[in-house]
Amino acid sequence: MTDRPILHEDPRSGNCYKIKLTAALLGIAIETRQYDILVGETRTPEFLANVNLNGRIPVLQIGDRFLPESNAACWYLAKGSTLVPVERFDQADMLRWMFFEQYNHEPNVATLRFWLRFVGESNLSEQQRALIPAKRIAGGDALALMNDHLQGREYFVADEPSLADISLFAYTHLAEEGGFGLENYPAICDWIDRIRALPGFIPMA
Amino acid sequence: MTDRPILHEDPRSGNCYKIKLTAALLGIAIETRQYDILVGETRTPEFLANVNLNGRIPVLQIGDRFLPESNAACWYLAKGSTLVPVERFDQADMLRWMFFEQYNHEPNVATLRFWLRFVGESNLSEQQRALIPAKRIAGGDALALMNDHLQGREYFVADEPSLADISLFAYTHLAEEGGFGLENYPAICDWIDRIRALPGFIPMA
Repeated sequence: MTDRPILHEDPRSGNCYKIKLTAALLGIAIETRQYDILVGETRTPEFLANVNLNGRIPVLQIGDRFLPESNAACWYLAKGSTLVPVERFDQADMLRWMFFEQYNHEPNVATLRFWLRFVGESNLSEQQRALIPAKRIAGGDALALMNDHLQGREYFVADEPSLADISLFAYTHLAEEGGFGLENYPAICDWIDRIRALPGFIPMA
Repeated sequence: MTDRPILHEDPRSGNCYKIKLTAALLGIAIETRQYDILVGETRTPEFLANVNLNGRIPVLQIGDRFLPESNAACWYLAKGSTLVPVERFDQADMLRWMFFEQYNHEPNVATLRFWLRFVGESNLSEQQRALIPAKRIAGGDALALMNDHLQGREYFVADEPSLADISLFAYTHLAEEGGFGLENYPAICDWIDRIRALPGFIPMA
């Protein structure tokens, strides 16, 4: 990596935190540019034209190239490091948990946190409010599956910390802000403690 | 790969087709086991205990190990092949499009196809029916972003076919079954023709 990566981020976003945690665990220096997603700073014509046509953060900038999607940015930083298992199945299995995170976990656990903590329940649309029960169930299912998988395991893949753990840690350790109590998931609680104890760990801002 | 991979699938699923298309383009022989998701064959106690606790297909079985998540299975098969760019940014950018596919595209384009073609609009719950307009908009946004990216490009990443194309092709070429007309996305239509012309291409069953 010849250029110092620049993270376009909102510090309240767990997706952005994933990338900063990956960089911290690997000792990679990055710069940041901050945007307020609540006032639409990632939907301006300038942002859409120059950073991400999808209007979302995080975006990791490498020189004059822009990489959206949090888990892809983590991959960019961590490829070839101890956070990416080398063995063929294990490496694919790590990606499996990262796709699970974006499909089953984030749209439920992170979205409820965003709605309840930042937007505010009284400001939600009627349709958003109607979706809360289904997201509560689906988020709980994702947490239960994680808890089950962690029985007798220290980390998600190959019993070593990997990007799968970082990706899932980001919104899981904030789950209570979305109304998901973690007291019913003891294996998750133990795993959260293990992640926090990793050398180089940084908390969310 | 010492064992012949076994794909646990429903042939109507575009997520399963991705894996078969990857294998076909690479000349990898795989076996299949078929399930009918419409009658709950991936939610049986046996399936949950032995194949995937998440109750979903596809799952790629390698010996006695099981790999859920379609894009992770494609990665397992294609790692080290011409379908995965070697250059660091390009490789991460390929994953970026695969995460985009699972987050922005599949939950809209594929879900509407499943609801309208297989479940039937009259069998949808009231909540599902209420979600159709939002999914129609979000799916259209995903297709528009793809069309924009493909202006002046032959493939999504590094102008060579990669897993990003396979992942996005699966449900894009079926988008009309979900009510998304492709006539407004000429760059997508040209790209679909290019994918169909790749050596080893197989159509969906």
